[in-house]
Amino acid sequence: MASVSYGPEAVVLVLAAAGGAGLGLTLPVTLAIALLLAVLTASYRQVIAAFPNGGGAYAVARRHLGHRASLVAAASLIVDYVLNVAVSIAAGVAALTSAFPALHGYTAWICLAVLVGITALNLLGIRESARAFMAPTVIFVAGIFTVIIAGLLRSQPAAVAAGTATTLDFRTVGLLLLLKAFSSGCAALTGVEAIANAVPSFAAPKVARAQRAEVVLGGLLGVMLIGLAVLIQKFEVRPVDGTTVLSQLTEASLGHGIGYYVVQFATVVLLALAANTSYGGLPTLTKLLADDNCLPHRFAVASPRQVYRYGVLTLGLAAAALLIGANGDMNALVPLFAIGVFVGFTLAQVGMVRHWLLARSKGWQWRLALNGFGAVLTFVAAIVTTAMKFTEGAWLIVLVLPLLVVAMERIRGAYTRIGEVRGTAELPRPPRPRESVVVVPVSEVSELSCEALSAAMSIGKDVVAVHVCLEGESTRAFTKAWEAWHPDVPLVLLPDHDATVGGPVARYISEKYPDRRKVVVVAEVDPPLGWNRVLPSHRSDELERELRKLSDTVVCHLRVQVA
Amino acid sequence: MASVSYGPEAVVLVLAAAGGAGLGLTLPVTLAIALLLAVLTASYRQVIAAFPNGGGAYAVARRHLGHRASLVAAASLIVDYVLNVAVSIAAGVAALTSAFPALHGYTAWICLAVLVGITALNLLGIRESARAFMAPTVIFVAGIFTVIIAGLLRSQPAAVAAGTATTLDFRTVGLLLLLKAFSSGCAALTGVEAIANAVPSFAAPKVARAQRAEVVLGGLLGVMLIGLAVLIQKFEVRPVDGTTVLSQLTEASLGHGIGYYVVQFATVVLLALAANTSYGGLPTLTKLLADDNCLPHRFAVASPRQVYRYGVLTLGLAAAALLIGANGDMNALVPLFAIGVFVGFTLAQVGMVRHWLLARSKGWQWRLALNGFGAVLTFVAAIVTTAMKFTEGAWLIVLVLPLLVVAMERIRGAYTRIGEVRGTAELPRPPRPRESVVVVPVSEVSELSCEALSAAMSIGKDVVAVHVCLEGESTRAFTKAWEAWHPDVPLVLLPDHDATVGGPVARYISEKYPDRRKVVVVAEVDPPLGWNRVLPSHRSDELERELRKLSDTVVCHLRVQVA
Repeated sequence: MASVSYGPEAVVLVLAAAGGAGLGLTLPVTLAIALLLAVLTASYRQVIAAFPNGGGAYAVARRHLGHRASLVAAASLIVDYVLNVAVSIAAGVAALTSAFPALHGYTAWICLAVLVGITALNLLGIRESARAFMAPTVIFVAGIFTVIIAGLLRSQPAAVAAGTATTLDFRTVGLLLLLKAFSSGCAALTGVEAIANAVPSFAAPKVARAQRAEVVLGGLLGVMLIGLAVLIQKFEVRPVDGTTVLSQLTEASLGHGIGYYVVQFATVVLLALAANTSYGGLPTLTKLLADDNCLPHRFAVASPRQVYRYGVLTLGLAAAALLIGANGDMNALVPLFAIGVFVGFTLAQVGMVRHWLLARSKGWQWRLALNGFGAVLTFVAAIVTTAMKFTEGAWLIVLVLPLLVVAMERIRGAYTRIGEVRGTAELPRPPRPRESVVVVPVSEVSELSCEALSAAMSIGKDVVAVHVCLEGESTRAFTKAWEAWHPDVPLVLLPDHDATVGGPVARYISEKYPDRRKVVVVAEVDPPLGWNRVLPSHRSDELERELRKLSDTVVCHLRVQVA
Repeated sequence: MASVSYGPEAVVLVLAAAGGAGLGLTLPVTLAIALLLAVLTASYRQVIAAFPNGGGAYAVARRHLGHRASLVAAASLIVDYVLNVAVSIAAGVAALTSAFPALHGYTAWICLAVLVGITALNLLGIRESARAFMAPTVIFVAGIFTVIIAGLLRSQPAAVAAGTATTLDFRTVGLLLLLKAFSSGCAALTGVEAIANAVPSFAAPKVARAQRAEVVLGGLLGVMLIGLAVLIQKFEVRPVDGTTVLSQLTEASLGHGIGYYVVQFATVVLLALAANTSYGGLPTLTKLLADDNCLPHRFAVASPRQVYRYGVLTLGLAAAALLIGANGDMNALVPLFAIGVFVGFTLAQVGMVRHWLLARSKGWQWRLALNGFGAVLTFVAAIVTTAMKFTEGAWLIVLVLPLLVVAMERIRGAYTRIGEVRGTAELPRPPRPRESVVVVPVSEVSELSCEALSAAMSIGKDVVAVHVCLEGESTRAFTKAWEAWHPDVPLVLLPDHDATVGGPVARYISEKYPDRRKVVVVAEVDPPLGWNRVLPSHRSDELERELRKLSDTVVCHLRVQVA
């Protein structure tokens, strides 16, 4: 829904390049977009009916198009969620700076502040209720309709936006330009998919409600887009630096009074909430992907507040990178948006075509035709959008989508190999004990070494202390102190070959005890949290790195706390 | 020695602000600097005699001025080492771009490339031999003297540097400006300290050789500075964008022929080697400080190639930050340099005054007088330099020095607390075994769990398996699989309170076995190196974090490798 605030803008921006004649074509281009919207709405009604568990394009592709296509769908969804956050925030901030021009110049900073705020709220597990959505949505829709009706009734604009408008020259308008404007405006269609992804969150009867929501959304969106396009032509709105098209239209219809600020403010809130929906969607999607071994498992680990922190953080960081890269300019981000959306649309429709071919339920012929027509349309739209916007940033999406797919494929492969090692496939043999030897590397005679040896003696009967003689340390002093202490444990002195502790210890135990289970006890003082973490030398890390290369070696950490 | 290439430049740059009358004062200012140089050289001869083990200001302050003063000296040395790298590289690149103006505009990039190169060589443990220093030094000194003599014999400059020189207007020259020029030029004195820091690296008889080197260096430096100042006045050299003063002088004396390129090239090589000396000095100093518990111990850990990697890396990163901050402009960095040097000088001299008061060896009165005079002079110079350069970047040094000192104090405090826990002070009690219980957290029935239980059985008689029932997982399926496997180990099912594994396990074992030594065995698949490291969920890290808070708990890691 929020896409109304950046869709028309994108069309105007492109057509303005062709001057007055171009702007005159806003309405036809918008009608074409509305037509596509109608087809998409109808075919997504069917997606909702066929996949009542949600998941949208990913679910359809996984069921009907095989593993790789589902990964492509997942990648396009990930890209869309990230772009939705970036575009919504950028558009919201653009609405804000239109209303308060004094904020210009801080655009990127405001965007990042909003992003950090939303991310932090989501990390804390604070979620908006559906009710929070209601009020701004109603105000926004009512506001837009008021703008449209008031604008249609008026013969003269109530006020003209400040700022220098581009002067228009009348040139011929090429097909290329029309295609470009069309593909830009398609960014307004992104909302269609959201409902199909979120069917499970509807109240029962889910499917019927979700379908109705889809149609209502599609209808409202179409009417608003066309109404705004009519107004754009009527008031001859053209791109003005620092004021959005929607802001200009509102000013023209309602004047620069309280009504203007209400609409602008509702736009800002609605866009912030639109950005927030990604925070519900992406972490859920990445959790599903992690469960399917396509993403690292930590994406599936919930925090104590039931938040998938890795998903939320990844989303925040990716959106921050986009906002910084685009310097908070919404018109730089919108071109990237449509591609991922159309890839997802196309896959979903192709999947639905297969669905009808397999199901052959009542009326499958015309349903198949509808989805097939949608698939062709969205496929063409995807190609057109990519071609038209390639140099304006679409190359980034063309690059990122396959990279994401390849990465997920490789992660899956790695988990398969790890799974073989875990050996969950068949019932494991029963566990059996083996004779063990406990090795304690000691660097000094101290209370800490005493703790380590005590622990080692509790673990096994056969305990050996080893000391690596590092360059610049006195072996004599150590052995003297050891003899004075006289613990009841044999001591082995190892020469140091390469200024490391790990190498000599690992070599010694693997050569001396090839057949036994080796247990190495490492005692450390655990520094308190915070900057103190940098204090320990990394000797024990190095030891552990060397030892973990040995099979049947268990490394035991005994950590003594600093009070 | 290399400081000859940026000292005179700094003086000219300041005096040029006062126009022709100002530049006429280059010689007097240089004479004042040369006087300070003479005093410093004489008093550092005494530092060398009193501290034949090197360490310079840090050693003197540690012996005679107490702990805190030694930290201030150490901090000023650290700052100087870092600045030496940054200034030397920037000056070397300035000499290069003077000779090859086409390289202008890439200054910062060339600086960083040289820095990365030097840092990489040092990380690999490749050190320059003393011989490597000889040739460029001899060529450089011979070149400078040739420039001076040829310049004095010439009545007209052989060539005038290209580029637009600032036009001069004759204004009165204030005292402030003179002080500023003086403090800028003092950057040329930085070499004096280097010899006192490095006494141990001289061949025997160390002290005599080091003292002789100090006097020779001081003498050469003084003569070169004065000679260049005379030439600057004679040829009325003024600052030209993109050409160093030394380059202008060389051109004026020798013309733009082969001689010019030889001198410039020797300057570049000498400055690169000068930057490299910091890589010998700083890691050694930070190793000493780490041994004294004033820096994290990893600064004292040598790599297999006998390199103190943390010191080298820290130096490289700090110098990179400075070079980026100054955009590779040597004249932005030189003002920062003198402050740290003078702080170190002052501390060393004050320490020497105390030394003579305590020692009262032959001729102590006049030695004390000399060091006292030096202390007053360098103290005044430190104040003047800081005041004059405060807004030009000296605030950074004024900020960093105390921060470094406070950080080192706090690190020392933390190590003292850790040392108390280690308990090296007295002979520890003999180690004693205690009754133990071995706990194995199991998340699945698999080959891996079998490994973990086998290891646990080898470690202790009393083995318990625990399973945390996480939300969304089927406890029923797990217990069924467990019963089918039927290992000879009791199983405890724990409820999950907050979506973590660590909390329930830690609570269970600390409540159930308050008096026993607790051993927890965690089995993991160790992914191969590289990006696979991100794959494991952080469940076992989280488990370890919780468990390390418990006293007398040993966490054992069993890692199974992926082939």
